[in-house]
Amino acid sequence: MLTYIYLIAITAEAMSGALMAGRRNMDIFGVAVIAFVTALGGGTVRDVLLGNFPISWTQHPHYVYITICAGLFTILIAKHMNHLRRLFLVLDALGLIAFTIIGCNVAMKLGYHPTVIIMAGMITGICGGVLRDLLCNRTPVVFSKEIYAGISLLVAVLYLGLETLGIDHDITLIVAFSVGVTLRLCAIYWKWSLPTFSYTSEEWD
Amino acid sequence: MLTYIYLIAITAEAMSGALMAGRRNMDIFGVAVIAFVTALGGGTVRDVLLGNFPISWTQHPHYVYITICAGLFTILIAKHMNHLRRLFLVLDALGLIAFTIIGCNVAMKLGYHPTVIIMAGMITGICGGVLRDLLCNRTPVVFSKEIYAGISLLVAVLYLGLETLGIDHDITLIVAFSVGVTLRLCAIYWKWSLPTFSYTSEEWD
Amino acid sequence: MLTYIYLIAITAEAMSGALMAGRRNMDIFGVAVIAFVTALGGGTVRDVLLGNFPISWTQHPHYVYITICAGLFTILIAKHMNHLRRLFLVLDALGLIAFTIIGCNVAMKLGYHPTVIIMAGMITGICGGVLRDLLCNRTPVVFSKEIYAGISLLVAVLYLGLETLGIDHDITLIVAFSVGVTLRLCAIYWKWSLPTFSYTSEEWD
Repeated sequence: MLTYIYLIAITAEAMSGALMAGRRNMDIFGVAVIAFVTALGGGTVRDVLLGNFPISWTQHPHYVYITICAGLFTILIAKHMNHLRRLFLVLDALGLIAFTIIGCNVAMKLGYHPTVIIMAGMITGICGGVLRDLLCNRTPVVFSKEIYAGISLLVAVLYLGLETLGIDHDITLIVAFSVGVTLRLCAIYWKWSLPTFSYTSEEWD
Repeated sequence: MLTYIYLIAITAEAMSGALMAGRRNMDIFGVAVIAFVTALGGGTVRDVLLGNFPISWTQHPHYVYITICAGLFTILIAKHMNHLRRLFLVLDALGLIAFTIIGCNVAMKLGYHPTVIIMAGMITGICGGVLRDLLCNRTPVVFSKEIYAGISLLVAVLYLGLETLGIDHDITLIVAFSVGVTLRLCAIYWKWSLPTFSYTSEEWD
Repeated sequence: MLTYIYLIAITAEAMSGALMAGRRNMDIFGVAVIAFVTALGGGTVRDVLLGNFPISWTQHPHYVYITICAGLFTILIAKHMNHLRRLFLVLDALGLIAFTIIGCNVAMKLGYHPTVIIMAGMITGICGGVLRDLLCNRTPVVFSKEIYAGISLLVAVLYLGLETLGIDHDITLIVAFSVGVTLRLCAIYWKWSLPTFSYTSEEWD
């Protein structure tokens, strides 16, 4: 089940990357790169930081093709994307949870400390979007909008906790997805956000 | 032969990086860093992603000195660079092809899938320029200007194809360089570019 | 002794990252990430480039907590930070030297070439700030302000030289810190900076 959700997730992430590339008037190569990086960049950063070589997508080249095709397909259906907004947000929420759980699993198998396991989940969940924003030359949106990373953190802690307690794996997955997707959609609907920190002194560097 | 072209290529890339650093009014340390990153960053990203440690330039420190010296030398001759523009574009084109072929070779020796081999060639060819643009705080030019990455892709596919067919290595190199450099110069001269994707809805993130 | 200075250094770096995040109006998650990246990003880049896995902070999770707590604590005391400016600059200078020496040590133990050892020291010293600036969408300040990287370079060369000469380790540390911190504070006080390179032709890419 996780694999299917993962495929849906990388498709949705690739499409979100392609739309951002379109806002920067990139050419189709740029669209393909941003789609690929948005979808698979989080897992790549995780694998590099954990020393988990070979990196996941190098062993599954069809993931590369899926993300590139999804990115290019987005160009064709861009004018209809507004109608798909709600579906898209649900897929994106599913993706965040799937990425987080997969990231935790990878670090767990490598025997890392629980803190690193939780961070690996969050890195997988959010770094794709951070890289997309860096390549599109803007401050990463994940650092200042509705709760996104916070939900990844919560799901990672929940998942690690249930696994440690020895709960049945399928039940753990169902709980993690239910809680995570529900919270994410609530956060979007009611515009939940974390308190922000504004600092204006110009004296510092 | 490939080694000599590689040395010319990193020199040309380092100089292009130094000019960009000059546009941002960086100090000489910044110029040296951007020169180094532009020239050797592509190979570094490739080695990290392929898990190919130790990274190439750590075993060839003279590459580091060449790029830093080329960067600093550029400061001295900056006012004459416009006269050298054509020579420079040819060297840059040679560099793109050399980087691509070297990148393919590295991934091939490590036994990666053909898709990853081609991507390794492209990453080596274009990531130096992408890192340069990130450090100079602008949207990477490779995603929106004349065909650059597309030529790297074509050369990578061509090279991999000829190698797989068992063509003599020297002939393969000559063909790859001839086709690649010719196409790149044509792309600059006639301003060939890929179709772009523009998307303006503000509703999305 | 180096360990204590290191802990002070990552705290000071995390706080400087948090202030920058505050200038971008980030939420508390963004502040925590920028604090973490500013403090531990330099060592992370060094470990990845040297192939030094597992990465240092994954084996010392309390470093992660220290940087995140320091970042969040900065939000509380932000309005008093101006009064602490001088203390802060001294801590930052101590941090630069500590990071540089630790980076040299890591590369030395792995048997790298002296050039790479010196670069590893500088990467540890400055890459945290570069990543902070990238994530905050601005041109890295280290490339264009008072001498910072230059002092890291000097300390790395000095440290490597004294170690090679077989000087007692404690004396080497004391000399490196004295020279480095003094020079850094002089550079701030008298606004020492490297010559800059300005290039304005728009013809190039």
